[in-house]
Amino acid sequence: MEDSVKKIALLGMGTVGSGVYEIIERQKVNMPDKIGCVLDIAKVLVRNKKKYENTVPAEKLTDQWSDIINDDSIDIVVEVMGGLEPARTYIKEALEKGKHVVTANKDLMATHGHELLDEAKIHGCDLLFEAAVAGGIPIIRPLKQCLVGNDISEVMGIINGTTNFILTKMTEEGMEFADALQLATDLGYAEADPTADIEGYDAGRKLAILASIAFHTPVTFDDVYTEGISKVTAKDIRYAHELGCEIKLLGIAKNTEDGIEVKVHPTMIPIDHPLASVKDSFNAVFVHGDAVGDTMFYGRGAGSLPTGSAVVGDIMDIARNMRFQCTGRIGCSCYKRIPIKEMKNTRSSYYIRMKLEDRAGTLAVLAGLFGSNNVSISKLLQKTKEGDMAEVVIVTHNVEERQFMDSITVIAAMSMVQEISSVIRVYSAE
Amino acid sequence: MEDSVKKIALLGMGTVGSGVYEIIERQKVNMPDKIGCVLDIAKVLVRNKKKYENTVPAEKLTDQWSDIINDDSIDIVVEVMGGLEPARTYIKEALEKGKHVVTANKDLMATHGHELLDEAKIHGCDLLFEAAVAGGIPIIRPLKQCLVGNDISEVMGIINGTTNFILTKMTEEGMEFADALQLATDLGYAEADPTADIEGYDAGRKLAILASIAFHTPVTFDDVYTEGISKVTAKDIRYAHELGCEIKLLGIAKNTEDGIEVKVHPTMIPIDHPLASVKDSFNAVFVHGDAVGDTMFYGRGAGSLPTGSAVVGDIMDIARNMRFQCTGRIGCSCYKRIPIKEMKNTRSSYYIRMKLEDRAGTLAVLAGLFGSNNVSISKLLQKTKEGDMAEVVIVTHNVEERQFMDSITVIAAMSMVQEISSVIRVYSAE
Repeated sequence: MEDSVKKIALLGMGTVGSGVYEIIERQKVNMPDKIGCVLDIAKVLVRNKKKYENTVPAEKLTDQWSDIINDDSIDIVVEVMGGLEPARTYIKEALEKGKHVVTANKDLMATHGHELLDEAKIHGCDLLFEAAVAGGIPIIRPLKQCLVGNDISEVMGIINGTTNFILTKMTEEGMEFADALQLATDLGYAEADPTADIEGYDAGRKLAILASIAFHTPVTFDDVYTEGISKVTAKDIRYAHELGCEIKLLGIAKNTEDGIEVKVHPTMIPIDHPLASVKDSFNAVFVHGDAVGDTMFYGRGAGSLPTGSAVVGDIMDIARNMRFQCTGRIGCSCYKRIPIKEMKNTRSSYYIRMKLEDRAGTLAVLAGLFGSNNVSISKLLQKTKEGDMAEVVIVTHNVEERQFMDSITVIAAMSMVQEISSVIRVYSAE
Repeated sequence: MEDSVKKIALLGMGTVGSGVYEIIERQKVNMPDKIGCVLDIAKVLVRNKKKYENTVPAEKLTDQWSDIINDDSIDIVVEVMGGLEPARTYIKEALEKGKHVVTANKDLMATHGHELLDEAKIHGCDLLFEAAVAGGIPIIRPLKQCLVGNDISEVMGIINGTTNFILTKMTEEGMEFADALQLATDLGYAEADPTADIEGYDAGRKLAILASIAFHTPVTFDDVYTEGISKVTAKDIRYAHELGCEIKLLGIAKNTEDGIEVKVHPTMIPIDHPLASVKDSFNAVFVHGDAVGDTMFYGRGAGSLPTGSAVVGDIMDIARNMRFQCTGRIGCSCYKRIPIKEMKNTRSSYYIRMKLEDRAGTLAVLAGLFGSNNVSISKLLQKTKEGDMAEVVIVTHNVEERQFMDSITVIAAMSMVQEISSVIRVYSAE
């Protein structure tokens, strides 16, 4: 048993796939000691076999899924192709055949994860996906095992490296968004079409997975409010500093008394919060549990080898489970159905920057309007004057989104208001 | 099977024990959903039963180990008494009887951990100890499972909350060591006898455990060099800031080409290193793996509920393993025997603050002496003058400890040197 071989099929040989391939090659010699068996990448599914003929032995390469699904010697299917289809179908078919699955596919897990985990359970298979959230950072096992004795009230993270890189450049070098995005593109941190990163969709997918695990409730990407960073300006970042904050694109999931909040948006966060010092393309996930208190998990959220590290950790765990005949030991943990709040019912503190007529009584009118919508003001700062216009920054207390938005709609329509320049949520532990 | 009960004996009802007790009570209702069974604390071993008659039902309290070891219905023994004996004997006896064990005992695991893990293996039992390192922070499962595909070259941490609190106060409020220690004592962060914390012994024990797991090699507390924080001054912290560093008590374990380095000492670390912003009594463990790159795990390293969180995570994992009949699945992972370097053969960069005669040529003589011991100087700063004495700060490149110490011995004996005021190691990624 000690020297048995577990056969793996790798679906995809892109960034993550090549990382997985390389790590398994590197660790070959350690496998018997680490997990009591050897991992053999028996098949690699690619679109164009020619492209890989120098990296992968010819007999392992295939462009036919049937070569894999019909090969009963394959124990573990590793899906690193990305996208919803055919990944979803392949994973389902693999589980139906009793093959265990590792996936790094956040799009898929955030949309069809629960269906696939149910499928895995039926067949007593492992379906592991540590790499689908925050790349190489260990977070799923810590949540499902180490912190299982906690009621988790909050999971919050910097879970998109591209936007964190852009915001870091805007913060440290005073760049505007467009320039920082260009730099990120030039350096390969941003994709040719950066929409999924910039608009918070990528972070939203990861947040849906994190919230599902933390709150034991199915949360899908559709449930997540997303707002990107394209409207954040260097000026707002400077003003944030004056308020003792950094601006980060945060995924925030809270389990409140009246339901789950799941939202991705630019957020002002106090500089002494552990997430505030996470820079460049690094990711971090902050977790608050009733017993453990505050914890944070930090590292590389993307990249060939970091993401490959998480995938290989999953593969090796499955191999070990197979040896001990305990696959399916930790499956879906969503035994609750906590309602998910609509964005308008969530709560936050807000920062508003606006241009107002510089006239006696203006600020009193403004404060009155917020007050009539139950929006109480925590700070009101007059920043600059330009002719008869004044730039004003307001920070509210923790209020309901709906009430805040109602007051902003009214205020924006007033003649004394020239412009609502920015609205950015401010993190509140409440 | 789904509703089966796992019976637990809790050895000790101090800080950690009471946290474990409370968390299991809180989580009672969730247990069937989370782990498919119920945990019942059937026995609590204490010295003085009277003390606990209001918190623990009388029929569970015992002051006799024999009541536990001879009770075949007890599945899991949770050792949270601390100290080497009788903890070691109790754990051994429990394993011999086929009972699984969870311990939070770092002293014991850093000294006799390998012997106990061997014992667990013989009997097919789980012996888990997540709480023995960095309290509530998930670190052992991440290292043994999530990062198992990595060759880990460095594990480094702030793994003592008391000293981190003291250094934070010295940093933020300019306090001297004695005053900060007094404050820590007043606030209950430091024990009546703070030696184990202040001198780095507590951190050294945790580091031995971390190094063993990271490098797959038995490392015990005796192997660890320890140096405490009592000689750190507020002035050195100010000078560190001028050099772009914070001073932290770090446990540093490196797997170098010629062996393992394990050392605990005050360390200057660049302010942009993730460990530099870990404040107050928080802990953090930084890990570098060849695939994952840099990762960090942050949270509460001590306290009743945080440490209890880690213990309960282990208990629940064992209960799950029992259901799936795969206990002993992850045991000792020390399959290597990498030699451990003596401190004199380790390498570091060094900060030296000294008082010298303020005379032409003094610095040249000094630089020459360092040079003749192969200690090259990276920075040399003249700080203040007092009469004919000058205060000088020197930072060396990365050099061998022996060569550095040899040069310091010679320099200290020179007539032009009035005083070597401080020597503090400077973190170097080399």
